[in-house]
Amino acid sequence: MSIKEDWIFFIEDLQNRICMALEEVDGKEKFIEDAWKRKEGGGGKTKIIANGNVFEKGGVNTSVVFGKVTKEMETQLKIEGAKWFASGISLVLHPVNPFVPTVHCNYRMFELYNENDEVTDRWFGGGTDLTPYYLFEEDAKHFHETYKNVCDEFDLSFYPEFKKNCDNYFVNYHRNNERRGIGGIFYDYRRPRENKDVNFWMNFAKACGNAFLTAYLPIVEKRKKIEYNNNNKYWQEIRRGRYVEFNLIHDRGTLFGLKTKGRTESILMSLPPTVRFEYNYEPEKGSEEDKILQIFLQPKEWI
Amino acid sequence: MSIKEDWIFFIEDLQNRICMALEEVDGKEKFIEDAWKRKEGGGGKTKIIANGNVFEKGGVNTSVVFGKVTKEMETQLKIEGAKWFASGISLVLHPVNPFVPTVHCNYRMFELYNENDEVTDRWFGGGTDLTPYYLFEEDAKHFHETYKNVCDEFDLSFYPEFKKNCDNYFVNYHRNNERRGIGGIFYDYRRPRENKDVNFWMNFAKACGNAFLTAYLPIVEKRKKIEYNNNNKYWQEIRRGRYVEFNLIHDRGTLFGLKTKGRTESILMSLPPTVRFEYNYEPEKGSEEDKILQIFLQPKEWI
Repeated sequence: MSIKEDWIFFIEDLQNRICMALEEVDGKEKFIEDAWKRKEGGGGKTKIIANGNVFEKGGVNTSVVFGKVTKEMETQLKIEGAKWFASGISLVLHPVNPFVPTVHCNYRMFELYNENDEVTDRWFGGGTDLTPYYLFEEDAKHFHETYKNVCDEFDLSFYPEFKKNCDNYFVNYHRNNERRGIGGIFYDYRRPRENKDVNFWMNFAKACGNAFLTAYLPIVEKRKKIEYNNNNKYWQEIRRGRYVEFNLIHDRGTLFGLKTKGRTESILMSLPPTVRFEYNYEPEKGSEEDKILQIFLQPKEWI
Repeated sequence: MSIKEDWIFFIEDLQNRICMALEEVDGKEKFIEDAWKRKEGGGGKTKIIANGNVFEKGGVNTSVVFGKVTKEMETQLKIEGAKWFASGISLVLHPVNPFVPTVHCNYRMFELYNENDEVTDRWFGGGTDLTPYYLFEEDAKHFHETYKNVCDEFDLSFYPEFKKNCDNYFVNYHRNNERRGIGGIFYDYRRPRENKDVNFWMNFAKACGNAFLTAYLPIVEKRKKIEYNNNNKYWQEIRRGRYVEFNLIHDRGTLFGLKTKGRTESILMSLPPTVRFEYNYEPEKGSEEDKILQIFLQPKEWI
């Protein structure tokens, strides 16, 4: 099996495993699958759940896409080569209950080739981040600890570095540097180097992908039955507004996808189902809403 | 009175006249005013209405801002000079009733100066566009006719040109070139030239600004009492999602404002109050919703 085949087999299998586990937790709705083709090369599988008991809207996507390097890619991605290949898994889940956090994860590999179809460059990237609406310290710790454990098995420097990357990436710069959540891990452009060959980075991505259910499901199980009122839902919808702002204004993946004619519906599956924008909304000082907002403004160490 | 004083007096007076008229139509809520200062120079008045009988959320803003030309402005606005000045009025209204259209308008002047504070460049720009959720041909005609009449008093070439500009500006390129509404007029970078001096362009902007209530209010009055159901509201919220997408992904003014540290709350007052994002939403073929969608995909002449 080639590197690419190995990776594609993994992400499609992971997609199925994640969707099955999420359906079981949801207990009502199933994922529907849209397989799509890309005119310029490749395609993907978009799996969507909506109006479930637990998940109000969610998508778990895989894609395997390739083509010629365009001028736009040269400029925007700063890459050089004749052809490219990209493949990854990407998911976003927006729960109904404001006490259950939204989650995002994405793991991808990228290859570049010269005119003779020889690989000239290859890298891995990805990450997982959690967006709670209310703070449960033990959940934040559990989430971070899960990924720290994975990281530590590969390199002790990874967790501190990738945790910081994450805090510095999911930032609404136009909102006083508010983070969209309590972070997680994020890394990019990891190329085979010295003792970290291509299998090292693929195995690391696989380990992170496999950790998703361990990191997220226990939190869902613990919080999905908490009773909530209209104020809790209101706050969730306000925060979802900030999620929309981040994804549409700042997220490199979203903007790159949209501007290079990716499949819009698969890219924008990340947007929350119902959202509110209110002028100058501020939670009451000292409230639970304010408490988590302060953490978004000043990320902390969870471990 | 200098050109700038003349313009500032006009926009602040127009802001008051528009807010008073909208309050009367609303019959319940009043605008609240936030006066703000900008650290780098100038400030503005943001007037906001929310949860009215007619207007679910709306803002009517004026600003008078100035400062030194930064590197970011040189790159993004492609301008040269030592100092700049900008002043304008900007409004967006999101009605409760899905049969009442959303409307946006913006008129602004811009000046550049050299080190000796001499004016080296000056231009006007602006426009008004209508975003209905259901099509009433007579409303679209009335709206366009109002601005055609204003344009025709200044130059017979204006309406056809500015109508086309508008159709080509408010476009969600990532949505198969769907327009966000049925258009209106849009023009930019209008500099004093030959027989069109600075007063010509200021008077044109004033005439367009003054036409706003004539263009919009009769439509509100006609449609505000139409009964609507949950499906109509759902469709309105889906379309509001497209409004968000346009403003955050494509709108030059929004992105420039956010990236140059404008006042976020005043810029993002344009976002709708409640919004929905649904995967792959498509109205039923032949429905009223589909009828207006087809017009967004293929703009037409209304006069």
